[in-house]
Amino acid sequence: METAELQVKTTQKNVMVPISGQVTALLRQRGWQDGILTVFVPHTTAGVTINENADPDVARDMTWFMEQLVPNVSGFRHAEGNSDAHIKASLFGSSVQVIVRGGILWLGTWQGIYFCEFDGPRSRTVQLAFQG
Amino acid sequence: METAELQVKTTQKNVMVPISGQVTALLRQRGWQDGILTVFVPHTTAGVTINENADPDVARDMTWFMEQLVPNVSGFRHAEGNSDAHIKASLFGSSVQVIVRGGILWLGTWQGIYFCEFDGPRSRTVQLAFQG
Amino acid sequence: METAELQVKTTQKNVMVPISGQVTALLRQRGWQDGILTVFVPHTTAGVTINENADPDVARDMTWFMEQLVPNVSGFRHAEGNSDAHIKASLFGSSVQVIVRGGILWLGTWQGIYFCEFDGPRSRTVQLAFQG
Repeated sequence: METAELQVKTTQKNVMVPISGQVTALLRQRGWQDGILTVFVPHTTAGVTINENADPDVARDMTWFMEQLVPNVSGFRHAEGNSDAHIKASLFGSSVQVIVRGGILWLGTWQGIYFCEFDGPRSRTVQLAFQG
Repeated sequence: METAELQVKTTQKNVMVPISGQVTALLRQRGWQDGILTVFVPHTTAGVTINENADPDVARDMTWFMEQLVPNVSGFRHAEGNSDAHIKASLFGSSVQVIVRGGILWLGTWQGIYFCEFDGPRSRTVQLAFQG
Repeated sequence: METAELQVKTTQKNVMVPISGQVTALLRQRGWQDGILTVFVPHTTAGVTINENADPDVARDMTWFMEQLVPNVSGFRHAEGNSDAHIKASLFGSSVQVIVRGGILWLGTWQGIYFCEFDGPRSRTVQLAFQG
């Protein structure tokens, strides 16, 4: 297993930041060829997902809808006031696993990896592990 | 790591298709014995999950409820009109990891793997990777 | 690959039980050093997630909100009456993958692993697999 880290800056409270480009650059730099790449988010108010990389309106619709689905309701007790972000983080999940073949992310044509910020803007870290 | 692909045909807009049988047949054919199996969906309007394989009403209740939870609301901007499907895909996730022991999926008694179609009917692909 | 099992007792219908302590104790006992740990829940009305380990109100807010988001509505057909629990299980997911480095779970400062009970109280099992 080899590991690495990426940095992501988010500029809004809720935003999906495409990171496939950064991940692909890292694959090349490290020479990771055939194996499973784990992309892990070490934060509790952010997640990671794989979804459409073509029309930016998809990511916009997703974050917008999640704000309606998980609003910051008055019943929350957590004093930091960001329980909505914690819930969204668990609904999307803290990691994705991508198959790598011949040094390429084996994704579908329309798929990209997104860092999902639910309590930004912040400076965030993404952890990666590759097992060949 | 070894990889493979399965084909799944879906016949409705929203439907959970059991694929444990196909996956198990593939395990046997390839002779995959002890390791982690990654089941990955290379689509952005479909996902994969593990849930009850006994009473088909569970999968029916799940897809039915998800239609109420994530309806195709008027606020969506994505021109293809299937933002609901993209959201469901990320809520369920694009991959599952199953432990394989002695050539058998190490699942619970009532668990099965389901391909989750949210924008069918379509012909879909499932990617698999086994690391022993 | 090496595997192990943990036992978890849940005392409420909906509750998130922190299991990082048990998982860490197992890592030490087995001497698992560098690799990917898969934490898999072999149940269909429970899941597993990674979220805040500091303020217990976060887990309380999460389970409380999920009860509002996925209530036991009258439209369900599954005769056991726990379709809500099955849906929550798939929304949170049946496994998490954690990177292990130097015998330590490579989690963020505020992250802990939680067994998510949605149909307790019950005696539950957690499956683990480590690939170095």
